[in-house]
Amino acid sequence: MHDKPLLMQLIEAFQCLPGVGKKSAQRMAYHLLNANRQNALKLADLLERSMQSIQHCQQCRDYTEQTLCALCRNERRDQSVLCIVETPADIVAIEATGTYAGRYFVLMGHLSPLDGIGPEEIGLNDLRELVVNNQCREVIIATSATIEGETTSHFIVSMLQQIPDLTIKISRLAQGVPVGGELEYLDSSTLALSLANRQNIN
Amino acid sequence: MHDKPLLMQLIEAFQCLPGVGKKSAQRMAYHLLNANRQNALKLADLLERSMQSIQHCQQCRDYTEQTLCALCRNERRDQSVLCIVETPADIVAIEATGTYAGRYFVLMGHLSPLDGIGPEEIGLNDLRELVVNNQCREVIIATSATIEGETTSHFIVSMLQQIPDLTIKISRLAQGVPVGGELEYLDSSTLALSLANRQNIN
Repeated sequence: MHDKPLLMQLIEAFQCLPGVGKKSAQRMAYHLLNANRQNALKLADLLERSMQSIQHCQQCRDYTEQTLCALCRNERRDQSVLCIVETPADIVAIEATGTYAGRYFVLMGHLSPLDGIGPEEIGLNDLRELVVNNQCREVIIATSATIEGETTSHFIVSMLQQIPDLTIKISRLAQGVPVGGELEYLDSSTLALSLANRQNIN
Repeated sequence: MHDKPLLMQLIEAFQCLPGVGKKSAQRMAYHLLNANRQNALKLADLLERSMQSIQHCQQCRDYTEQTLCALCRNERRDQSVLCIVETPADIVAIEATGTYAGRYFVLMGHLSPLDGIGPEEIGLNDLRELVVNNQCREVIIATSATIEGETTSHFIVSMLQQIPDLTIKISRLAQGVPVGGELEYLDSSTLALSLANRQNIN
């Protein structure tokens, strides 16, 4: 293994990145060697530091190198509203809308009993504690619109409803026709849902 | 800059890779953090070592962390045949054919006077020396079939022809219909070339 040229080892290592095959890995290695060594060294340093120090936020379970993530430390975010997402990337997507000012909780996955992922693994105990401690008045469930996401959502709803002495509004992201979507090309399940959940105008 | 979360810095750093935009960079960072920290640390280590120790082979100018690259050290490769390519990636492509047993010389680019890349920058002095020292009997010019590649090829041919007392066979990669190519979809320049260079069968 260690007799292999360093370049071959580097090209193999690049293939641990998602969506990067042999050809792209080769292109990356040559590109960096040819004109981008400073940036490559910076990337190496950031990779090492990130992998060693980024852990989960103790409150919302998002990635952070500190005890609490920037969103949880931000006093201007309304802590009585909690949005539950499956992955940290979902937070990025919701933040990009610029229309949400509450806090988050990241499940880091969804319920999947066959893979050994139960309520404990997706942090539902922490979630329950957070909802009670923060005296949440609203929980928005923003899990994916997949079977697994729906199942997880149902489970969370029933868990929250069992908390005694807590009046809480629980909502789920609206489903329907996406902006710019043409009905002709929309799948029938989505169209059926958007018909069933039609919104009154007057 | 250094107040930015480490994760944001990592996502930005990934964008120095060719073909990697903000979205892919984010996907890479989350993927590594989530399930691949060991591989990420290995990648970081290899990146650092590669950028610091990979230089050009003193003979063929290919990338290597040693004085001479593996191909130049391989005694079984015929050093009297020299294939001239533009980039190290071209060597990989030719080696993949498994039909060439000579040595290589890498120009690391092509002539481009407007960008300040002249004969010196693409190592033509070294090439001349190598051809004379190795007593080459054949040089195969495998520069790209672009205007710049052709210009570079012409320049090399005239340089080699000016070496006194040297009988040398100079050839250029054949141009024509690619394997599996349908004439209907072939560009007219290539078709014209393959007609002009038609090969006798009997």
